Amino acid sequence: MNRIYFDHQATTPTSKEVLNEMLPFFTDIYGNGSSQHYHGREAGKYIDIARRQVADAIGCKAGEVYFTSGGTESDNWAIRGVLDGYKDKGKHIITTCIEHPAMIKTLESLQKKGLADVTFLPVDNEGFISIEDLKSAIRPDTVLISVMTANNEIGTIQDIKTIGKIAKENNIIFHTDSVQAIGNVKIDVKEMNIDLLSMSAHKFYGPKGVGALYRRNGIKMGSFMTGGEQERNMRAGTLNTPGIVGLGKAIEIATRDIDKNNKYVSELRNYFIKEVESKIDNVYYNGTKSDKCLPSNANFSFEFIEGESLLLRLDLAGISVSSGSACSSGSLEPSYVLLATGRAIELAHGSLRFSFGKNNTKEEIDYCIENLVKIVQDLRELSPLFLKKKGENKYV
Amino acid sequence: MNRIYFDHQATTPTSKEVLNEMLPFFTDIYGNGSSQHYHGREAGKYIDIARRQVADAIGCKAGEVYFTSGGTESDNWAIRGVLDGYKDKGKHIITTCIEHPAMIKTLESLQKKGLADVTFLPVDNEGFISIEDLKSAIRPDTVLISVMTANNEIGTIQDIKTIGKIAKENNIIFHTDSVQAIGNVKIDVKEMNIDLLSMSAHKFYGPKGVGALYRRNGIKMGSFMTGGEQERNMRAGTLNTPGIVGLGKAIEIATRDIDKNNKYVSELRNYFIKEVESKIDNVYYNGTKSDKCLPSNANFSFEFIEGESLLLRLDLAGISVSSGSACSSGSLEPSYVLLATGRAIELAHGSLRFSFGKNNTKEEIDYCIENLVKIVQDLRELSPLFLKKKGENKYV
Repeated sequence: MNRIYFDHQATTPTSKEVLNEMLPFFTDIYGNGSSQHYHGREAGKYIDIARRQVADAIGCKAGEVYFTSGGTESDNWAIRGVLDGYKDKGKHIITTCIEHPAMIKTLESLQKKGLADVTFLPVDNEGFISIEDLKSAIRPDTVLISVMTANNEIGTIQDIKTIGKIAKENNIIFHTDSVQAIGNVKIDVKEMNIDLLSMSAHKFYGPKGVGALYRRNGIKMGSFMTGGEQERNMRAGTLNTPGIVGLGKAIEIATRDIDKNNKYVSELRNYFIKEVESKIDNVYYNGTKSDKCLPSNANFSFEFIEGESLLLRLDLAGISVSSGSACSSGSLEPSYVLLATGRAIELAHGSLRFSFGKNNTKEEIDYCIENLVKIVQDLRELSPLFLKKKGENKYV
Repeated sequence: MNRIYFDHQATTPTSKEVLNEMLPFFTDIYGNGSSQHYHGREAGKYIDIARRQVADAIGCKAGEVYFTSGGTESDNWAIRGVLDGYKDKGKHIITTCIEHPAMIKTLESLQKKGLADVTFLPVDNEGFISIEDLKSAIRPDTVLISVMTANNEIGTIQDIKTIGKIAKENNIIFHTDSVQAIGNVKIDVKEMNIDLLSMSAHKFYGPKGVGALYRRNGIKMGSFMTGGEQERNMRAGTLNTPGIVGLGKAIEIATRDIDKNNKYVSELRNYFIKEVESKIDNVYYNGTKSDKCLPSNANFSFEFIEGESLLLRLDLAGISVSSGSACSSGSLEPSYVLLATGRAIELAHGSLRFSFGKNNTKEEIDYCIENLVKIVQDLRELSPLFLKKKGENKYV
């Protein structure tokens, strides 16, 4: 059997259609997009096509799209740029306690240096912020509200439209990290009153190393990457033409196929959830079972078991899944996202994220379930806590 | 006739050998290099091979190589990171007035905000800094000396080893922007006492959108891109596996073939210089004709002519070259590098950079010379200043 990949929220393969679109830009149309000659203009032409593809996907103007090296850069830029652009107003930022580390770590670091004053909103058991909490957190010196569209661990999708409305009513910039959402959640930045939005191509079958920041025209921002005059003097650095072309094609496909893929992937996911819950005891679903969850996402805590052990045993069985925040390598800390939803430390430690993609099949899920049942049983037989509960452990 | 590309210092095509190495990492070995499962470990394995390739090329340890999105990010990080790491010592930085905009603009912006105090060293007619000037500029609060290995407009190669020695003697961090130098200049960071070095893959037949920063172990630095724990918690963001693999292969090839390529390219370049100077009057070579010039580089000022006009006419003839700083799009400012070497504004305006590559041929140069001679003559016939000099302009 081939290796099974159930970790699409960590990254996706670049689709063949996207890669084929990129290939000419490595070896043939290789000019520097800033150069004035033919080779440069040709590159520039296709960069502009990609800009238009991104703009069409999220409902903004092409001139409002800025290419970056990925979601982390877009998030860094959004935060630091707004702090710089609105420093006369203040430095208070409202965000959530379950943002991606690109947001949390950046905000914590700025706060530590006295450059930002951050309110981290709590979330409920399903990972939703409270709109009332958000309203209460607003201050005269609030310059930015940043709430992720969908969470990377539990998939919870926030009510972005309502948050955008509140930000607008209070004349506060609204940024959303849509890194997990693009391709899974329909986004219209005008309708949702989004001022800034981060995305990363490799999360929707595009290449790694390229992303974008949407900036609504009129939002004042400093640059993050300084140097040359690329991207209307806002983001320095030679434009990554193949990557940008790949991002454009990937978002075009993701937007075109969103309903079809969401239906297919959520059916797989729902089947998986049903199987897990019917075949394994003492298992807890993390996040929300409403339709406000990424269709790809299923996060479970397996009582009496370390997520790491489960991950490694599944890996030996040929199945790739994630534990914890999944982007951070080898961290043995319990998931801060699950702790924020009220999960006990032991259950947060015992969590695994399964994230499905359009190339997965029902057969792969059956194979996974078959192994998961056995592995969970094996690991529990080794767990003192489990044996104690069963009354079989003489030593605890 | 095919289009001719004489702009290899703006960017190079990705070589087929490099691209072939990258391809599996888009569609097959696509895991997130930070993931603990098979897909992630496979990606991580090849990222580590690339890290070793970079380390071998510049004589450092693999653990001293950090992957970035390119030269601009590496430069930004070097400056901001050192200011952060050594803030107790001071904020004085010594650099040159002919650095790339990624350095100059970043330093100017930091200086404007009061976060850095910068000495921009002047250069002589050939673009060299004076070692005595450097020594005199050192202060007790100097935290960083940053001098580019080779200039991007005129190709002048600084005496990096001596500069490194002075920095070491004075216990000051030494950074060099080697974006133009890698593949053209042999670099050994230990022997040259380099503490930090920036590179960008697309300048040596690697892909765009990926670069590296070498950081000598022990150099204290803050992060620039904050978030996940990638790159030993120093540079957040999902690792761009295909790009990194491409960078590794490209630097391996560039290092392996450096003597052969330098010989071939410098012979083309020398032939071009001889032809230009023997067939066109009132032409001024910019930079140095010593061996302390990038083998690919020939920068000329054509008196009585705007560089832009010449560039556009050459473009019509199918030849791609650069004017001004060549990385900055459509800027009509005269080159600050040429002004720094003492060129008059008119001559700085009348400059073109021809930069040759390993795929160029003598036939292409002959075709270029043939056109250049005609175009220069045509444009001068339209130039009031030229006609005045010839005594043929009744109106000036």
